[in-house]
Amino acid sequence: PFEWTAVDRRTVDTVRVLAMDAVQKVGNGHPGTAMSLAPAATLLFQKHLRHDPSDPAWVGRDRFVLSPGHSSLTLYIQLYLSGYGLTLDDLKSFRTWGSRTPGHPEHGHTAGVETTTGPLGQGLANAIGMAMAARYERGLFDPDAAPGASPFDHRIYAFASDGDLEEGVTGEASSIAGTQKLGNLVVIYDDNHISIEGDTKVAFTEDVLKRYEAYGWHTQSVEFTTPDGYVEDVEALHRAIVAAENETQRPSIIRLRTIIAWPAPKLQNTGKAHGSALGEPEVAATKQILGFDPQQHFEVSDEVLAHAREVAERGKAAHEAWSARYEAWRAANAQRAAEFDRIARRELPAGWDAKLPQFPPGKDLATRKASEAVIQAIAEQLPEFWGGSADLAESNNTTVKGGLSFLPYYEQDNEFGGSSPYGRILHFGIREHAMGSILNGIALHGNTRVFGGTFLVFSDYMRPAVRLASLMHLPVTYVWTHDSIGLGEDGPTHQPIEHYAALRAIPGFSFVRPADANETAAAWKATLEQDGPVGLALTRQNVPVFDREVLGSALSVHEGVKRGGYVLAEASGGTPRAILIATGSEVQLAVAARERLEESGVPTRVVSMPCVEWFEAQDVGYQDSVLPKSVKARVAVEVGVAQPWYRYVGDAGRVISLEHYGASADFATLLREFGFTAEAVEAAARESLAAVAD
Amino acid sequence: PFEWTAVDRRTVDTVRVLAMDAVQKVGNGHPGTAMSLAPAATLLFQKHLRHDPSDPAWVGRDRFVLSPGHSSLTLYIQLYLSGYGLTLDDLKSFRTWGSRTPGHPEHGHTAGVETTTGPLGQGLANAIGMAMAARYERGLFDPDAAPGASPFDHRIYAFASDGDLEEGVTGEASSIAGTQKLGNLVVIYDDNHISIEGDTKVAFTEDVLKRYEAYGWHTQSVEFTTPDGYVEDVEALHRAIVAAENETQRPSIIRLRTIIAWPAPKLQNTGKAHGSALGEPEVAATKQILGFDPQQHFEVSDEVLAHAREVAERGKAAHEAWSARYEAWRAANAQRAAEFDRIARRELPAGWDAKLPQFPPGKDLATRKASEAVIQAIAEQLPEFWGGSADLAESNNTTVKGGLSFLPYYEQDNEFGGSSPYGRILHFGIREHAMGSILNGIALHGNTRVFGGTFLVFSDYMRPAVRLASLMHLPVTYVWTHDSIGLGEDGPTHQPIEHYAALRAIPGFSFVRPADANETAAAWKATLEQDGPVGLALTRQNVPVFDREVLGSALSVHEGVKRGGYVLAEASGGTPRAILIATGSEVQLAVAARERLEESGVPTRVVSMPCVEWFEAQDVGYQDSVLPKSVKARVAVEVGVAQPWYRYVGDAGRVISLEHYGASADFATLLREFGFTAEAVEAAARESLAAVAD
Repeated sequence: PFEWTAVDRRTVDTVRVLAMDAVQKVGNGHPGTAMSLAPAATLLFQKHLRHDPSDPAWVGRDRFVLSPGHSSLTLYIQLYLSGYGLTLDDLKSFRTWGSRTPGHPEHGHTAGVETTTGPLGQGLANAIGMAMAARYERGLFDPDAAPGASPFDHRIYAFASDGDLEEGVTGEASSIAGTQKLGNLVVIYDDNHISIEGDTKVAFTEDVLKRYEAYGWHTQSVEFTTPDGYVEDVEALHRAIVAAENETQRPSIIRLRTIIAWPAPKLQNTGKAHGSALGEPEVAATKQILGFDPQQHFEVSDEVLAHAREVAERGKAAHEAWSARYEAWRAANAQRAAEFDRIARRELPAGWDAKLPQFPPGKDLATRKASEAVIQAIAEQLPEFWGGSADLAESNNTTVKGGLSFLPYYEQDNEFGGSSPYGRILHFGIREHAMGSILNGIALHGNTRVFGGTFLVFSDYMRPAVRLASLMHLPVTYVWTHDSIGLGEDGPTHQPIEHYAALRAIPGFSFVRPADANETAAAWKATLEQDGPVGLALTRQNVPVFDREVLGSALSVHEGVKRGGYVLAEASGGTPRAILIATGSEVQLAVAARERLEESGVPTRVVSMPCVEWFEAQDVGYQDSVLPKSVKARVAVEVGVAQPWYRYVGDAGRVISLEHYGASADFATLLREFGFTAEAVEAAARESLAAVAD
Repeated sequence: PFEWTAVDRRTVDTVRVLAMDAVQKVGNGHPGTAMSLAPAATLLFQKHLRHDPSDPAWVGRDRFVLSPGHSSLTLYIQLYLSGYGLTLDDLKSFRTWGSRTPGHPEHGHTAGVETTTGPLGQGLANAIGMAMAARYERGLFDPDAAPGASPFDHRIYAFASDGDLEEGVTGEASSIAGTQKLGNLVVIYDDNHISIEGDTKVAFTEDVLKRYEAYGWHTQSVEFTTPDGYVEDVEALHRAIVAAENETQRPSIIRLRTIIAWPAPKLQNTGKAHGSALGEPEVAATKQILGFDPQQHFEVSDEVLAHAREVAERGKAAHEAWSARYEAWRAANAQRAAEFDRIARRELPAGWDAKLPQFPPGKDLATRKASEAVIQAIAEQLPEFWGGSADLAESNNTTVKGGLSFLPYYEQDNEFGGSSPYGRILHFGIREHAMGSILNGIALHGNTRVFGGTFLVFSDYMRPAVRLASLMHLPVTYVWTHDSIGLGEDGPTHQPIEHYAALRAIPGFSFVRPADANETAAAWKATLEQDGPVGLALTRQNVPVFDREVLGSALSVHEGVKRGGYVLAEASGGTPRAILIATGSEVQLAVAARERLEESGVPTRVVSMPCVEWFEAQDVGYQDSVLPKSVKARVAVEVGVAQPWYRYVGDAGRVISLEHYGASADFATLLREFGFTAEAVEAAARESLAAVAD
């Protein structure tokens, strides 16, 4: 029988008071939603979420995602009340320098925060990714357990706001969740009719639940607004959550009609209560309504705290009960348990890279095709490695052959060799943004390694997710093919120009543009051996496989790529007069230009620079050895805007770049017409040499 | 009575043959959809679209948007058949260098192409923008006409594909279209169950029409797949389109179930037919089925062409009938007609800028607040000027006061002073991407000037639309406030770092970051006086208003900003030893550092560089006068990544930049902790001076 005592109600009101006080103290923030979601959050953390505050990384825990990150106090206060280590002092230092309670929840910064939210829509899409990862994880370690019987069975809970549901990324991701029949996902939609511009009727009049029915979700409604006034019927909400939990064949959404900032007498149900401190008088008036002393701040009774903290004991007990099942699983599945241990440590198996392909020089190959071969070699060694594409599998060459489609049913007749709930091939549809956010959710969930592909130009569609992957330092890999005007006939809408610069600009992100098939293999290897997000830019068109011995490469291709930039072709005599820097498909132009320069007596070095970020991470000694300060005649060549290269070519250098959009024609014509030729590189080098001589 | 003769059917089959042949000739492209949409496209162009092929810019025309731009042949072939000037030779040069038939339709390149499409979802969202613009245009020039009676009444038709409807941007925009009750919009959704990864069941199982019902749309279904086989019931489609046209209170979507590449015997209904040439044998077999000579290519009978071209005559007649109504309107509305002429020429009224605010030095002001004042002054002079925000009106300060909300009904009680179908305040909801695409649609429609606001960090969400605005050179203005860590407590999810570099990288885009209130006014003025897309980056926090007289500015603020970069503060004696370059809120640091340097005897110039792109458009003489080559001691200071500045500071220069994410705290603490101080700028200048001396 469901119990919701006076202490529980007092706990809820304490949450409201803390939210008001925390915002009031710093003078800014978002009190309204934290107040009106107080009952839902308290109910969830106290009665539904399976969690152990003493072990926020417990692999068997349920996940909670707060998609409206601006309501961070909703989460912080529950973390405090549950005993995750957050203190009242932390709440008092809300939104201040160095605090554990920044304006928006930051994963990795505050224990118990499962993902960084704030950019709306991302959190709900992350939650959908987590729900997918939970199924894949189960498939890796315990695929044959009865539903609900595995230690790897757990749920994903999320709160979502009007803003989350307005953002298109959640529409994309929710459609995927419907197709995937994610029965382990429970979303509570806070329908409060208020956003920053006031009543949502000016922009948001759709029937949200009908839309979710259209996606194939299980939908329910709970109204706290009743004909008799505002009644926070926590038991009704509880029953709805139980029904959602019991619905294991579909994702669930519960529309919860609330009044923002309830019960603030003047500011409830206003846009102002969304994003501003209520002001001392309103805070005091609200405390009075709630039976709190308006003179006190951050008032938490011992009774409330003790009562709330009991969840930590219940969580420990749940954890222990789980551990028994987990140990039984380990005993019965020794090999899988060993695999689990390795994967949980994010270790690569010994010798995992022994079968990475090596590509002999002589035959041209598109780097996307090389990547396809590498993906197969990795997939063979790493069962935790999975991924797919935003409806471009054949173009991105991302398919793990024989991997089966990740779909909620078994089938033998699809074009990917069949499907399975535990399949390794992800089909995102034409939804790059959801793909990005789902990849983040999968990485946040842990215990798998995931990648996703689209055309490089459409990295724009997923950019908000790429940024969050970078901010959270998540190990996701993007396979971005058709990486330049070299894609040819599809024309300017499909040809990236600004994307190299724009992606390199993102802090914490590594943009890798390998020059040939072997650099592609090395790029994949280096990617798996590090932790942050990586974007691989791969050609559609064939490019030569370099003979590193003939060219006199200073390092092995693996060592060179790992260092971001390296001497691919050494100047005759070992002391260059000119340096040509290039990436990807333009490295061949640098190599050809070098030959011409060498023939005319100019010792010329070619530096392949697949990853500027990795090069910048090297010590200055290494960097200087590749780009000696004394050699000022330099040319950089890349089929994108020049912006990233001025830094490396210096005052006397030249950049061969593309400062305008491409065109629709075959790639050879485009490259010639736009000046990407060995002759042009050679001429630029001679200009630079002349500038040095001046 | 509806007539669809044997010649019409032959026309449809001719479209299929041309599509197959065009792709086959170049060897790549997308034949399948052009084949299966041939009946719908022919029906629309011949019987529904009000257009005059001899005048593609006719203001009274209906618009047609092909959202699945990869099916460009669908459009090109209709343009050819209707008589827009495209020839068979143009179709034969499909996807080749210099042709009028590039891979994806390019607005401004091919007459009759209303928007550039290819990046999926954008086109449908553009169409929604056009439908909104049509209503606003009507409100400007003929608000009191009875529905359908105005020369400004016209419809927007769009084709949309599975991919378009998977992309979140169309979900966002379609929800807005529902709220806006855009009865002038008719969408035909090509439901063919096939995308590049094959059967859409792997990723797209939702009930699309139910979703559109949830948005408030009028929905219909037409099935070409019947129990008796595939029957292209053009009359049924016609009836559905008529019903959609007659539904003037809601946007309409017609789901048309087709089989891609019909009737290719082997490749119909396959992913391969979506994006590859069918191959000669399949093309020949299909021609045989259609009763065409497999030996012939690009076969168009005189009868078919003559029949199809009759639409041009009908269009001329419709145009003439319209002109009579238009002239009657002019005669009855002389003042509005004069206004129309001015606006149609994109002219600004004489003296329009006389009342732009001038801000006296002395009082600090956030540039977003200055922008608010400027917007009011512009709005007073330019009725065609309208805009809004993605639910951040109060933060972006984008509201035209007294402008009324743009909503489909009249109301007096909303928070923006009321609403009207012709209101000037746009409410996009929390949908930045749709906002961007809708702004593009509005600009494409013409006869208005539009702007949209959000936080700068969320320019990421709308980036695909910003790119298309740039590619199409559309005059849209983005008001991006909260432009740096200076926004303070909201923390790293909300603080742009990489965005200055990433936006400057986009060809054809102007990123403008004014230093103070007067530069903000000048930035708005310069923006309205040019034609391309502009993003204004504005501060949340107060910044000083500079006293240009005291500082010794070389140019008026309007002249300086228009030139992108200028001498804001001259070195004592007029010959600088050091140059400090800054943008936005960092200009004050450069000004303060200059004082220190001047005090210690270093003549120092401050260059304010609000827009790198406009500066680059100046002649070299002007550029050299601002940044003389001889002055090599240089510092650039900007609270973003340094990437854009190496070009300007050179080998001896220094950049004070932010190469990592921000944090949640008050802005003064953040700037201090992250090294943005006058002292730091001064120290960097001394380093640079030392480097020059070396």
